[in-house]
Amino acid sequence: MVTEASKFGSLWPLPQKVQISEVSFKLTGYSFRIVDAKQSSAGPSCTLLQDAYRRYYEYMFGSAKRSGKNKNRRSGASDLTELQVWITSTDSDCDAYPNVKSDESYELTVDQPFAVLKAPKVWGALHGLETFSQLIFEDDYGAKSINATSISDFPRFPHRGILLDTSRHFLPVKVILANLETMAMNKINVFHWHIVDDPSFPYMSKTFPQLSQQGAFHPYSHVYTPSDVKMVIEFARLRGIRVIPEFDTPGHTQSWGKGQAGLLTPCYSGSRPSGSFGPVNPILNTTYTFMTQFFKEISAVFPDGYVHLGGDEVDFSCWRSNPDITKFMDQQGFGRDYSKLESFYIQRLLDIVTATKKGYMIWQEVFDNGVKLKPDTVVHVWIGGRYNDEMSKVTTAGYPTLLSAPWYLDYISYRQDWQNYYKVEPLSFNGTDAQKKLVIGGEACLWGEYVDSTNITPRLWPRASAVAERLWSSKDVRDINDAYNRLSGHRCRMVERGIPAEPLFVSFCPREYRG
Amino acid sequence: MVTEASKFGSLWPLPQKVQISEVSFKLTGYSFRIVDAKQSSAGPSCTLLQDAYRRYYEYMFGSAKRSGKNKNRRSGASDLTELQVWITSTDSDCDAYPNVKSDESYELTVDQPFAVLKAPKVWGALHGLETFSQLIFEDDYGAKSINATSISDFPRFPHRGILLDTSRHFLPVKVILANLETMAMNKINVFHWHIVDDPSFPYMSKTFPQLSQQGAFHPYSHVYTPSDVKMVIEFARLRGIRVIPEFDTPGHTQSWGKGQAGLLTPCYSGSRPSGSFGPVNPILNTTYTFMTQFFKEISAVFPDGYVHLGGDEVDFSCWRSNPDITKFMDQQGFGRDYSKLESFYIQRLLDIVTATKKGYMIWQEVFDNGVKLKPDTVVHVWIGGRYNDEMSKVTTAGYPTLLSAPWYLDYISYRQDWQNYYKVEPLSFNGTDAQKKLVIGGEACLWGEYVDSTNITPRLWPRASAVAERLWSSKDVRDINDAYNRLSGHRCRMVERGIPAEPLFVSFCPREYRG
Repeated sequence: MVTEASKFGSLWPLPQKVQISEVSFKLTGYSFRIVDAKQSSAGPSCTLLQDAYRRYYEYMFGSAKRSGKNKNRRSGASDLTELQVWITSTDSDCDAYPNVKSDESYELTVDQPFAVLKAPKVWGALHGLETFSQLIFEDDYGAKSINATSISDFPRFPHRGILLDTSRHFLPVKVILANLETMAMNKINVFHWHIVDDPSFPYMSKTFPQLSQQGAFHPYSHVYTPSDVKMVIEFARLRGIRVIPEFDTPGHTQSWGKGQAGLLTPCYSGSRPSGSFGPVNPILNTTYTFMTQFFKEISAVFPDGYVHLGGDEVDFSCWRSNPDITKFMDQQGFGRDYSKLESFYIQRLLDIVTATKKGYMIWQEVFDNGVKLKPDTVVHVWIGGRYNDEMSKVTTAGYPTLLSAPWYLDYISYRQDWQNYYKVEPLSFNGTDAQKKLVIGGEACLWGEYVDSTNITPRLWPRASAVAERLWSSKDVRDINDAYNRLSGHRCRMVERGIPAEPLFVSFCPREYRG
Repeated sequence: MVTEASKFGSLWPLPQKVQISEVSFKLTGYSFRIVDAKQSSAGPSCTLLQDAYRRYYEYMFGSAKRSGKNKNRRSGASDLTELQVWITSTDSDCDAYPNVKSDESYELTVDQPFAVLKAPKVWGALHGLETFSQLIFEDDYGAKSINATSISDFPRFPHRGILLDTSRHFLPVKVILANLETMAMNKINVFHWHIVDDPSFPYMSKTFPQLSQQGAFHPYSHVYTPSDVKMVIEFARLRGIRVIPEFDTPGHTQSWGKGQAGLLTPCYSGSRPSGSFGPVNPILNTTYTFMTQFFKEISAVFPDGYVHLGGDEVDFSCWRSNPDITKFMDQQGFGRDYSKLESFYIQRLLDIVTATKKGYMIWQEVFDNGVKLKPDTVVHVWIGGRYNDEMSKVTTAGYPTLLSAPWYLDYISYRQDWQNYYKVEPLSFNGTDAQKKLVIGGEACLWGEYVDSTNITPRLWPRASAVAERLWSSKDVRDINDAYNRLSGHRCRMVERGIPAEPLFVSFCPREYRG
């Protein structure tokens, strides 16, 4: 494939409605300004927007600006000198956190005497600023230009996420922030923070400091302090991104056991404890006391309305080996069906989390095992292969559903695998319109076995960009050649903004990545 | 797999003979010095060594040094304060270029009152410095320590290379230098520079400037100027690395055609030229005039005794379509055997290059096609699958042979593929001892379809390190668990030296990569 100009330039993800005229204007860093429209409900006190203006000005004129101000230069007749940002709702949401119902729509008109970006809320304005910056191109003389354009845009799905795993490898905060920055360039609005798992527990808990002191790879250099977490959440909020933490139990909890004695099930070898431990011990009251205190902290630390509770891949062999568990199973009349024991645990955990006023997300096994769920529980479909059947089942049961199965970006191969992610149609399962409306979106998952700060960013981008467009743009935006051409430009734009986004194929960028 | 201490620490590649005692010494950046031994044939005028001393001092004490000199501190009794470097041959090779016959051996003794590194030539000294730096570890208090050690070392194979492709994507010089730096950390001694190919011609030729002006992705930002090339060669020399350029013909030459009209074969569609071009046109005298001038320049620009002439994957369809070629084939009595035409071309090219006093390397097809080769021609085996058969054939014919087939690092998958590279035994083909002696080594090839400056370094390291140990260490160094443990430490050391070498698996480094 050869990069050719798309009629949509390098817009990514493609807006719902775009009209680009042939009339073009020039922009200079010296004269161009992004300003609040007079009628806007968000003024200079809206830090989120002021911060975004500065950020996008940097993206647009970063290099030009460095060549210094030219005080003598006058604006030309064909210059575009202003983008007015107009928040139309009386409440701009400027100081709020985004949520799954946030209005992300915007309308953008590029024309003289000025461009106008209208959005009900700041979230749409952020997306509109990104789109505006994507419309700017350099003409043959290096001058920044933009065509007269009219765009009306909104996301197809409200939940467009990326899962990063900070347990299998620790990711320095700086790396997380760089990827949040890049998520915003792709209109991704959820950072699913798979923060702890078997290998390490980097989350520093104020209530249970031993968890990271014992469970992190290193108690000082490989932890996220409360202020680190706060910084990540605020950095994300300023970019319209929700931070949903995952504290996966009862499996995937080896690292929890190091700092919290008695939490995990002791495994037996014959009639004696083997010294190794299995999933969270579901038969002890102390387990639920611990979880109550722990999730009380989590509900306060993470402002999002949802917390991901995991619940995947529980290995029953340790439970089977433990005579106390067997006794408990008999008492409860579970027979030898350990999924009933798992459900018993999860049920109590869900009650605990419900008491913190949070909603919850869970991996599909929890639903598959027939655990009783609140109606607004988000079921996360991840198992590959026949995932469409699962989508049908979950939506038949009436739960909001999230798709990740075809978007496991940790799997790699020698090919343009972004095309596979791109070709997925999340609503291709059998089901009624009502069922399809339950699909709130999807997430690209980059599990951490083989990635850390040395390679995660190029591994993620632009492959996750393919998922981003699938979840934002209209269903019929599927032309793979047009996508290739726009995405090539989009990837070079990410590179120019300092993000080492890897190439799609043989190609070059005007300004290559130099670290 | 879990990282445990190897009795060889994080030595990589493992030296031929190592004895590590339990006695340990401390080192401080304040007191430790690397100095020329009095008896050494290389003194302060040997820039290569002085430069290396500084480099390794930085690696060893980079961070400690920043905490400032402590003038009041006295050396402790158990301190190691000096490494004496003793070049034993009368000619140190200090100002020479390394070649396939260079002596790379060294002996290292770490003991009090000082450590001694003896090597016949500077090349061995460079390797010994790297090994010395790998012996240093931090004790529980962060103090730099080293055990009393005795090492005698030399490479199993004299040609240990890495191929980088700067045609499918342009690699900024900075990226090439960073990878040369890393090659030295792995005792890799050949940079096979696949500098031009179909997609682009970044080599700026003084004789034919149009080649890069027309054939590069961009005539200014995506070219290697003569001074860039000089810098790469000298940077490599200072690290004991040969730079072997590849100018692949007659196929893989689309980019040559842009700046050199008449060089490529016009393809025909029926009775008319189609407008597209095929391989180099082998039937014109102008082709050979051009090649004579071109390789005269190359022989002067690149000091190495060898140039790689390619010769792989020649597509005959264009030659078949061209009536002038058909006529020529008839005149020569080639029938319809286009490999004869290819051989005709290569034969003349080899004569041209021989006249420049250079040796040549060629991809295996040239040998397979029965082209008459000089006895010292290096045949490069790259085709996967039954490569052992090819190794047998080539060595039976008596040619020096280079293995790359199992080491195509552009192929990626979701697994620890370094283990596959590691398990390769280059001499496992059927053949006599005399045949096996013809195998001069191998190269890890990282073709450029999917890599550029955003991802090439973590894609290459530590995967290429597996090849590096296979080519350096003794045949019986094959313990995959010991290799995992040493390589995990080696990869963290590369990270600490600023190289984003990716993780082998779930793990952490004391100091993670922070860009």
